[in-house]
Formats: sequence, C-alpha cells, structure tokens
Amino acid sequence: MKSDIEIARSVTPKPIVEIGAKLGIPYESLHPYGHHIAKVSNEFIAAQAERPDGKLILVTAINPTPAGEGKTTTTVGLGDGLTRIGKKAAIALREPSLGPCFGVKGGAAGGGWAQVIPMEAINLHFTGDFHAITSAHNLLAAMLDNHIYWGNTLDIDPRRVAWRRVMDMNDRALRSIVSSLGGVSNGFPREDGFDITVASEVMAVFCLATDLADLEARLARMVVAETRGKGSVTAGDLKASPSMTVLLKDAFQPNLVQTLEGTPAFVHGGPFANIAHGCNSVRATRTALKLADYVVTEAGFGADLGAEKFFDIKCRKAGLAPDAAVIVATVRALKMHGGVKKEDLGKENLAALEAGFANLARHVENVGKFGVPAVVGINKFVSDTDAELQLIVDLCRDKLGAKAIVCTHWGEGSKGSEELARAVVEIAEGPKAGGFKPLYPSEMPLLTKVETIAKEIYRAGSVVADSKIKKRFKDLEAAGYGDLPICVAKTQSSFSADPEIKGAPTGHAIPIREVRLSAGAGFLVVICGDIMTMPGLPKIPSAEHIRLGADGQIEGLS
Amino acid sequence: MKSDIEIARSVTPKPIVEIGAKLGIPYESLHPYGHHIAKVSNEFIAAQAERPDGKLILVTAINPTPAGEGKTTTTVGLGDGLTRIGKKAAIALREPSLGPCFGVKGGAAGGGWAQVIPMEAINLHFTGDFHAITSAHNLLAAMLDNHIYWGNTLDIDPRRVAWRRVMDMNDRALRSIVSSLGGVSNGFPREDGFDITVASEVMAVFCLATDLADLEARLARMVVAETRGKGSVTAGDLKASPSMTVLLKDAFQPNLVQTLEGTPAFVHGGPFANIAHGCNSVRATRTALKLADYVVTEAGFGADLGAEKFFDIKCRKAGLAPDAAVIVATVRALKMHGGVKKEDLGKENLAALEAGFANLARHVENVGKFGVPAVVGINKFVSDTDAELQLIVDLCRDKLGAKAIVCTHWGEGSKGSEELARAVVEIAEGPKAGGFKPLYPSEMPLLTKVETIAKEIYRAGSVVADSKIKKRFKDLEAAGYGDLPICVAKTQSSFSADPEIKGAPTGHAIPIREVRLSAGAGFLVVICGDIMTMPGLPKIPSAEHIRLGADGQIEGLS
Repeated sequence: MKSDIEIARSVTPKPIVEIGAKLGIPYESLHPYGHHIAKVSNEFIAAQAERPDGKLILVTAINPTPAGEGKTTTTVGLGDGLTRIGKKAAIALREPSLGPCFGVKGGAAGGGWAQVIPMEAINLHFTGDFHAITSAHNLLAAMLDNHIYWGNTLDIDPRRVAWRRVMDMNDRALRSIVSSLGGVSNGFPREDGFDITVASEVMAVFCLATDLADLEARLARMVVAETRGKGSVTAGDLKASPSMTVLLKDAFQPNLVQTLEGTPAFVHGGPFANIAHGCNSVRATRTALKLADYVVTEAGFGADLGAEKFFDIKCRKAGLAPDAAVIVATVRALKMHGGVKKEDLGKENLAALEAGFANLARHVENVGKFGVPAVVGINKFVSDTDAELQLIVDLCRDKLGAKAIVCTHWGEGSKGSEELARAVVEIAEGPKAGGFKPLYPSEMPLLTKVETIAKEIYRAGSVVADSKIKKRFKDLEAAGYGDLPICVAKTQSSFSADPEIKGAPTGHAIPIREVRLSAGAGFLVVICGDIMTMPGLPKIPSAEHIRLGADGQIEGLS
Repeated sequence: MKSDIEIARSVTPKPIVEIGAKLGIPYESLHPYGHHIAKVSNEFIAAQAERPDGKLILVTAINPTPAGEGKTTTTVGLGDGLTRIGKKAAIALREPSLGPCFGVKGGAAGGGWAQVIPMEAINLHFTGDFHAITSAHNLLAAMLDNHIYWGNTLDIDPRRVAWRRVMDMNDRALRSIVSSLGGVSNGFPREDGFDITVASEVMAVFCLATDLADLEARLARMVVAETRGKGSVTAGDLKASPSMTVLLKDAFQPNLVQTLEGTPAFVHGGPFANIAHGCNSVRATRTALKLADYVVTEAGFGADLGAEKFFDIKCRKAGLAPDAAVIVATVRALKMHGGVKKEDLGKENLAALEAGFANLARHVENVGKFGVPAVVGINKFVSDTDAELQLIVDLCRDKLGAKAIVCTHWGEGSKGSEELARAVVEIAEGPKAGGFKPLYPSEMPLLTKVETIAKEIYRAGSVVADSKIKKRFKDLEAAGYGDLPICVAKTQSSFSADPEIKGAPTGHAIPIREVRLSAGAGFLVVICGDIMTMPGLPKIPSAEHIRLGADGQIEGLS
C-alpha cells in the first residue's frame, strides 16, 4: 500500500494559476510561492465584498480516540465529492504547525487519495505565515522587556507579565525559564517561558480578523501585562501593534493550494483548539465563500469543543451562517467509545459499536441545537465489517433520523465521497438549512455562558467555580468584557473533563481552574484541565527519520 | 529629497521572469515568491556546472565610521554601471536580518538610486530563508535537550553545551537565561541563551556549502557540546543533520531580485561579519558566475576583516578567484579617520582628509597582498567639495598608483557609476588580474596564521595569546583542525583591537581572548574583543514608527 507521501507525489499538480482560474482569480491577484502555491491578494479580496456567499459546510467529529477519525481527510474528500457532482467547491483548512512534524505526528494535509498538495511544503515552512506570527509575537515580547529596561514609564509589574515568547518547535526546555540574566545590560531577571507558535494570541487574532485594519485594532487590544496598580497594559500601550501588523501583512493573505483531484483549497491559519478556537482564518473562509458555491471547512477536536467554538466564536463574530454539518465517525473509534481496547479493534464487535454509538448520537443532537442540519460521514477502514457499517447507518436512521454515509475517499478519492456530497447538498439546500443560531446570547452573564455550554453540550451536572473564579468573571464583566464568548479548554477525548471517560457521560462536574482574557482575539479562555502549550519531543523523535532521499525528495515526513 | 523607500516605490519593477530571462533562466527553473522575487532551482544550478565562470569583483571598504561609506550602494551602483556599458552583469549581496530593522538601523538593500527592490520584502521576511535557518538551528537545540531528557546515552555534560538557541529579533532579555525550569517534566535546568539568527553557525554553514550534500555533511560536523569525558558531540551524533537539511532545502536556492535599473541581483545568506565570514552564500556567488560575465559582490565591515575573510575563507574554500576589487571610501569617513568629529564633517578640511587617507592607503596595499588589483570608489556626498574629491584622486594616483573614481550612483544611478565600471573592467581584464592567492597556506600552524593576519593586514606589533589559548590551538591541531582558516572577531572600526584608534596604526597588540571552533562552517573563530551576538533595542526602537499607511504601504522602514 502506498504511503500518503507516495500517493501525493504520484499526482502531477496543476499550475496554481489554473486552480485560481477555477475560482475566477486572475493571475495578477495571485502571489505565487513556487508554481503550486499562491496567496490571494488583499486587494482582490476587498473587491469581492459585494458578491453573494456560497454554502458553508462544517466537518466535525466524535470525540477523538487513538484509533483516528479522518476529519481532514473527510473534509478534503467532501470537497472533491462536491466537485465531482458538479458543484463549484472550495475547501478551507488550518495550516499545520511545523514543530510537531518533528515529534510524533505525521503531516496534517489529509491522507490517502484525499490530500491537499504539495504536502511537504504545507507541512513545513509553507508560505511562512507561522514564522511571521512568531516574529510579530516575539517583537512584542522584546518591546515589552525593552520598555522595562529603559525606565518602565508604564510602570509594568515584571512579576505580572502575561506575554510569553513563542517558537514553532516542540521544545520542553523552554516551557519555563528565567530571562534577562547576566547583569545590568541584559535587563531585570524575571520568570518567563515559551509556548508553541500556534498557542499565541497573535494566531487567534490573525484567524478572527476580518481585514488589516481589524487585525491591527485587535493586536492593539491584547493585554500583555499588569501595572503595579493592577491596570492592564496592552500591545497598543507599547506601540507595538502597527509594526506587528506590518510583519503580518503578507501572511494575512490566504494561501491557495489544491487537492489531489484539483479542487481549490484555502489553507490558512491554525490556532490551538484548546486555549483558542481551532479553526482556519475567517479571512480564508470568507474569501472562499465569495468565490465558490460550496465551501467545506473543519473545526478542531470533536464537536463538543471544535464545532461549539466554530459556531459560538468564529461564526458569531464573523457573521457566518453554516448551512450543514458533517459529523465524522469511524467504526474503530466508536468501538473504543464502547469500551474496546486498541489492540482488539480488528475484531467485529457489534455490541461495543452500539454502546459507543452514544457518543456519535450526542454530537448529532448537539449540532442540531445550533440550528444546523447534519449528516454522518463514516470514514471506512479496511478492517470494518459490512455488519458494523450497516449498524451505524441503521442506528442513525432509526434513533436520530439522520443519514449516515459510508465514505471511501481515503482509498478511492471522490468516487468514495460522491454519496456524502449528494447527502450534504440535500440538507444544505433543504428546508432545515438557514436556521443557524449560536448556543447562547452575547449578553448572557459569563458564568452562565459556561454553565450553558456545560449543560447543553457536555451534559454535565455542574460547573465548579470557586470564589476566586467567580470574582474573576465579575471583574471581567465590570471591565467591559462581559459580552465575549467563551472558549473552553478541556480534554478533547471526552464530553467530561476526564479523558478516560468515553461514550456519552452525564451528570459529571466541569471544574474551572483558571480564566484567561484574550482581549485581542475576543474571547475568554476557561481552563478546565491540564493544558500543555509547549509540547516536548518523544524519546525517538520523527526528526531522526526525516531526510532528503537520493532523488532530492523528502523522506519520513508522513 | 526623496527617501530610499519613496525612490524604490517610484520605479515599477519588471516581472521576475524578465530578470531571469536576462540570465538565461527559464520560467520553470524560477520558483517565484510573488511577481518580483524568485528562487533559482537547485536542479537548474546543477545543470550549469560545466559553464565557464564570469569575472568576480569584490566591493570592500575602509574601516567603517559613523559617517557611513555606502558599500552596498556602491555594489549595486557598480552592477548597474557594468550593465550600462554593455556587460552582462549580476550582483550578489547578503540578505538583511529582520530583527535589527526594528531597532535602529534602516534597511540593507542599498540606497538612493542604487537599490535592490522590492526593498520592504527584502528587509522583512523576504523568502523566509532566515526563518528556515532559525528553525533548523532550534530543532537541533530541542533535540539536544531532548536527548539529555530521555537518558543522555551520549553522556553530554549539561554544563558544556555550546549550542545556544537563536531568534531573528533584537532581544537582550534572551542573551542569558536558565532553561528547563519548572520540574521533572521540563528537563534538567541549565544555563542557556539566545543569539540573533545571523550569528548561528547554521548560517555560516549555509553560506559556505556548495550543494545540499555538502550542506548536510557540514551540519553533521558542527560541534554542539562536550561529553563528561571531554569528547565532542556533533549534530550528526544527535541525528539532527538530515532533518535540518530538509528544513533548509528550499532556502538553499538563491534568491533573485533586481536593481532599480533592472540588473539581476542575487540576495542570499547573511552571516555575521565578526564571528563568521560576513559574505553572501557561495551558492549565490557561484550561480551568478555561471550566468553572468561580471559578478559584483561585497564583504562585511572594512577590508581588514571583510575582504580578508572573503579571500582567505570564502574564496579559498569555494575555489573562487576574484579578478578585481573596489575599495569604497567617502570624504566624510576619511576626515573622521583624520580626526574630525562627526558634527564638523560638513566643513572642508584637506589636512584631516590627507591624514585619514592613510586608512584607505593601507586597505589598497592589503588587497594587493592577495594578488587582486584594486580601484578606489569615492562615494560622493553632497557636502564634499571639489578640492576634497580631487585630493583623494591625486593621493591615490601619486602614492598608490591606483585609480580613484568619484561616483554619484546614489543620486544618479548608473550614469554616476559608469566611469567606475570602466575602471573595473580595465583592471579585471588587464595584466594584473588572475593572480589571486590567499594570505597564508592552509598547512601553516594556527597561531602563526593569526600572527600572519595581524602582521600583514592589521600591522600589529604582536599577538597576545596566553598559555590557555596556545594550548587550545595545539589541541585543535591535534584533533585534526589545523588546516582550517582563521576568522578573526574584532572591532570593525580600527585596524587595531581598539575601536577608538582611527587612521592607520602600527605596532599595536592583538589580544586573543577566546578561540571557538566552527567545525561545520570550517573555520576557527579567534575572538579579540567584545563580541555581541544578540543586540538589544534602543530606547525608542524604530518598531514604534513602522506601520501600514492608509494606502496599505509600509511606512517608517527606511
């Protein structure tokens, strides 16, 4: 069987000008990066403002398990399937982070015959967007310490600097450091640390900004420290936001690539899905909607976190109205939710599958609460039996009144996603489309918003918030942040806050540990568990196997 | 008077395919980055190996002063001048570093009517080469600490890790840190720090490597730490060099841009000129030599450091044979070498000029020691008087037997450098060309090499090396590094090790503080003074003034 990278290389990509032409983008408005990648110019995007929007389709999933779901693969497959049935389709995906490619994970450009290409470029430096975000973030950090060094007229409390530094690398040694050591000329020693670039608030801002002016305004609002008098210090106070915007200007133009079948794909921005909202840029999604009749996009993690944030943060703030959703599940993952161990997944087990179905069922119900009609996409694995696949289809129909479609795009490309594409068109153009609404109103009190998400989506019995957390919410409301949406950071592996609890638990407690303000991005991060913002490398990192082959091609990346 | 950025924008750049066509590079072999920048493919470069080389012209300068010399401006002007007189010319320059643009300095793409464009892109992210170098460097750092974390089978002594981390930012807070704090899961705390990316040995390796295989081999040889038994640990031992090469693969292709007059310019690589050799990549220079009849390149700092390293490190190791040199001087800078203060430079002062001429005279003599014929380029400033300009011309003719040409390319473009171009062609095609030889043989003992440079180039009376330094040289010779060339790191402002001593001092002492092995780059760094490898920001950094204007264009960058 061919590896992803072998399949990707077996297809000759079309010149990017041809892909742009499919969407009506003229050559002059494409800024090429080589012959198969281009950015779409800010000027061209501005000129499309009055065009009507296409249909927006969200691809989300059950709670992820080590068995894998294939959400990105299904997003790509659905885009190709829509193209196959005659729709003018485009895909909008997150950009992968470079650092983790050298740790354990493979690429993040889909798989099998449902990939975006050129996958090596996309997985590594691509068009340098993340490097630009790293530079902008660290310029602000340098200006902050420089301000303290040269007299600290803003009276920043060096113990209360919230702005860490970032690097697009898995490097545990940088999680916690003491900086400015070495004497007078190096500043005032203080505790500091690095996060991985995708965890930067600049990334979240970049992905939610509608245009360059909005980008600069959001950057200016980011809170980076407190004064000794407990006042907020922002990037704007440090006069950093204009030059940060300059560093981000080119990166802000969405990247255009193609699927193996030549469907246009926008791959742009990639914020963390825990402390941020986990979707590709608003800029890319809106551009795609102006240029295509169907836009397929994905959200991070399972639907409890990813879809909820997509709807309540991204769609609410960007004025997007999704027309349909696809919830991706696999037989293997549902069996794990039904209690099967990973090593036993090869055996047919209808009882466990039916038990695990509860996880899928709840996600389908949840998506319905946002007024978005959904269809289930079953991403077929070779080990799945016909009886298992049929059981999911039957359960979806009988218990949820929902269509479930077995998809084989991984092995067959759009031939294997054509039926899914037809089902999506049916609901997106059917009577249930057009009813999107966020889960909670913006004016709801902050703690009540968290309780609403916990009750409606996680089916928790309670939210545990101590007096300090409750005071923090009150303070934030008093400071004018009461209308912000909530971004919950909790485990992606369960509806609960405990990654070990599979299936569809109810009545559990959601404990709030900490609340962080992302004033530039425009949401409050409510932390309900251990959140790692700087990964480490494993004992044998994949970096040890990534190399140039004798033919000059990259080996070991997938 | 128009600013550099205004001049740059007043010219409509030609499509980069037209610039490539001037050098015979087909469209398919150009990897465009937008419409005015391209990389030249590794495959195309490999296919040119059998073509004859053009003439190589080095632009160097007197010891720099705060008055400025205009070395890059003259390099660009000379390239345009050669084009004007009918030569097929190309330019090879260093890439500017992004970080310092936000500190005090302006761009590094020339000035006036002698610039390479698009200057904003070149000065900021450009094609991402420095980001790739940052990533490769920091991947190695992460793999090193990860190796220690997971059991340290190589027995690395954490107190003897020489491999710091890098960032392309002026950030004094990172010069000296303690890393891996915060508990067991973050590793073993140790002293660490960051340099600016251009100071990375990866940058020096990148700029001296001849092809991708050589790049990988050099990266593998880099010494990053010592074991507890004092053995060397290399990037190859950590299995990092293959994946680092993958990260550098695209960056390694030289960048092609153009001057305001449309002369092709390769802008590629930019190592520090103190702890490294300070020239653009061998890859770019050799590619340019295959494609053009005349290639104009520059070296860092004054000729005592820059030209000496260009000849003894880059040319020796890459098998390049420069045909002529231009030594850039200005009336203002020579007056400073003659004792005039910066605030008095506007007044005519022939006596000081004649005194300061000694600095220029020595550089002309020094370049002659390498068997390279030279001409003096006087970069004219508006405050220069006719008598001052004539005095330099007369002194060069009478005392040095050298031509000195007054150049006005800054204000007039190639019209102002035509005469310089004719003078360069005359010597490059004359009887004195073709005699290039390095200053010292590779097999000379290491300390003797340093003494040779100090005596012949700096005209020092002695080299001061204590017993520890002498032992270090002996140890390095015993370890097989005796044939490496020397890379002196000392002040650029004087022939001596004291930046305050202007003019042409003799008999001074050159004290060696430290010797560092750059085993991958292939030279020994001999440190003779304070060397800053991570700059800081000034009290009012230029970042506070860099912004997007209402028209979407960058303001404040120059």
